Amino acid sequence: MIASSETDSNMYYATRFLAPDPFIYLKTGGRSCLLMSDLEIDRARSQAKVDAVLSYSEYEQKTKRGGPSEFMDVVYDFLQEKGVREATVPASFPLAYGDALRARGIALSVKREPFFDERVIKSKEEVDAICKAQSAVDAAMDLLRNAEIREGFLYLNGSVVTSESIRRVLHLHLMEKGCVAQHTIVACGSDACDPHNEGYGPLRADEPIIFDVFPKSSESRYYADMSRTVVKGKASDSLKRLYDTVLEGQLLGISRVKNGAHGKEIHEEIMALFDSHGYKTGQVGGRMQGFFHGTGHGVGLDIHEPPRISKSDWILQKGEVVTVEPGLYYPDIGAVRIEDMVWVNENGCTNLTTYNKILEIK
Amino acid sequence: MIASSETDSNMYYATRFLAPDPFIYLKTGGRSCLLMSDLEIDRARSQAKVDAVLSYSEYEQKTKRGGPSEFMDVVYDFLQEKGVREATVPASFPLAYGDALRARGIALSVKREPFFDERVIKSKEEVDAICKAQSAVDAAMDLLRNAEIREGFLYLNGSVVTSESIRRVLHLHLMEKGCVAQHTIVACGSDACDPHNEGYGPLRADEPIIFDVFPKSSESRYYADMSRTVVKGKASDSLKRLYDTVLEGQLLGISRVKNGAHGKEIHEEIMALFDSHGYKTGQVGGRMQGFFHGTGHGVGLDIHEPPRISKSDWILQKGEVVTVEPGLYYPDIGAVRIEDMVWVNENGCTNLTTYNKILEIK
Repeated sequence: MIASSETDSNMYYATRFLAPDPFIYLKTGGRSCLLMSDLEIDRARSQAKVDAVLSYSEYEQKTKRGGPSEFMDVVYDFLQEKGVREATVPASFPLAYGDALRARGIALSVKREPFFDERVIKSKEEVDAICKAQSAVDAAMDLLRNAEIREGFLYLNGSVVTSESIRRVLHLHLMEKGCVAQHTIVACGSDACDPHNEGYGPLRADEPIIFDVFPKSSESRYYADMSRTVVKGKASDSLKRLYDTVLEGQLLGISRVKNGAHGKEIHEEIMALFDSHGYKTGQVGGRMQGFFHGTGHGVGLDIHEPPRISKSDWILQKGEVVTVEPGLYYPDIGAVRIEDMVWVNENGCTNLTTYNKILEIK
Repeated sequence: MIASSETDSNMYYATRFLAPDPFIYLKTGGRSCLLMSDLEIDRARSQAKVDAVLSYSEYEQKTKRGGPSEFMDVVYDFLQEKGVREATVPASFPLAYGDALRARGIALSVKREPFFDERVIKSKEEVDAICKAQSAVDAAMDLLRNAEIREGFLYLNGSVVTSESIRRVLHLHLMEKGCVAQHTIVACGSDACDPHNEGYGPLRADEPIIFDVFPKSSESRYYADMSRTVVKGKASDSLKRLYDTVLEGQLLGISRVKNGAHGKEIHEEIMALFDSHGYKTGQVGGRMQGFFHGTGHGVGLDIHEPPRISKSDWILQKGEVVTVEPGLYYPDIGAVRIEDMVWVNENGCTNLTTYNKILEIK
């Protein structure tokens, strides 16, 4: 791998060492080693969970061919010295580096995600890290209870409550708990009908508000992910029916998750349930309606990682952490999404998200 | 490009549209278009700064070859329909996609960074965004002034001041101002001798503390970057001399920045200055000492982007924003780094960082 471990989770997973600039990881003959810049080498030697940390600048001294491709010359000489003629790289390996190594005679084959098979299987420690990030979300979610309704809008301490103000308070709460949250969704009314719209402007009473919060722990670097849909005030009957249907689909999905289950079958079963209740999916007037995203995705060092519960083929395995988050979106009724994270086991799963599911907040 | 615009700044630069999962960008015949999932298509149509947004699922319907490589089949059919036989991709283009497209007969050539030449040249609006993030740093920096010294440690409101507590307050301040900061360095004593060590534990009086703060504005997505070295209490004479030397080198560097200047020459001139003052660079007792990182890097949508002022060859251009941040690190004296961001113009540069440079804080 040649990547920065701050942006590439495989690199972080393999080394447990954080650095902002790309560095080089090689595993050969069962031994892992890093080639590090002078800037990072001492820190890498004390922190990285690898067998050896070597100096890039020492190899550079030896190579000294100069010119714009010197970096890849150094990498090549390093591989030569290690006797490496062929290597397996992640799907995300940069094409520029791939071309340069192949041009020098190194055979590269690409392994699709998961690059490290064991990364999708979460240990107790990893699940604890995910749960800790999750508990920070739970603690930050009770904001709307204290709001009061005036003329259809929500007020807190005399100020109108907006998507932005709730998001800001959520982010501050999460930071207090050592988590960084970005792009948190607090979307009301028509904003919420676009599943990745973050939401803007005043929140309205009696309308669905989707919260989708996915903070990353600064310490462990693991994510949590939860969505809830709530109404401050009174939900319409059609919205209540929509909510109950999504919840039924979500609970159905959770009941199907177990070792060996097919993600695609779970997704299709929820789709069929929604359809049987009359909730159709497709374009209406040039806009998507219904259930038009996947049911779930793995959560770990990346917010979206394998496995998937979606149109794609994935077989769930014991130890994976995956979300179950169906949603239904109709501009004339409203939008509902409910999301928990579950930990797959032999015969079912453990729900890691304990936050309640109640549509109306008084 | 095939990338997520949340992680790939070229994709964000080209589209000004944020999405967490990879999508497809093609520019051909002067027209830019996106191929988007059902989940993102409506939001992309309203927000993305491109000429057309097309539906991935409509192409998928047409392709329907099935199998694990269907995604690349769809991309290929899309390119075929657009009459694309060859394409230029960024250096970071994933090797897996590169191999798949070439196997289908599309010729790919890689363009090194900067992929978009114009991205390194900052407009007034971009510089304003960078300055706004910078002003958030300035406002958060005055924390140490209020601390008091007791028995060699710092106290604020009765509690001992640590790297972690200062970092936390800085991050909260920055978040209040709409910026996300991570990996902020507040490193004292020997921690600071490792330039990317974030710093841990109680801060000590009379010892250098390096602050390196590089928040990203959540709104504009531009970074700022600043470093300062301070002592709460009294600096030793040898540390004062080290500080004065780094400051001399930094001011020398800033005075050399202008359109057409060679980054490498500036870096080497600072190196030579340090050397002439007796500050040598190299390994001592298995640990790097002296000035062993680059002098500067571009700042924009990425915290580290072209140009560089370092060992590499780069010619500075009018409109670039680049840091000037030499440092000297000696475990027996201390560590000093001073960093400003400057905006390159025809005959010099404008310093965007106005925060004062004073070693001792009383």
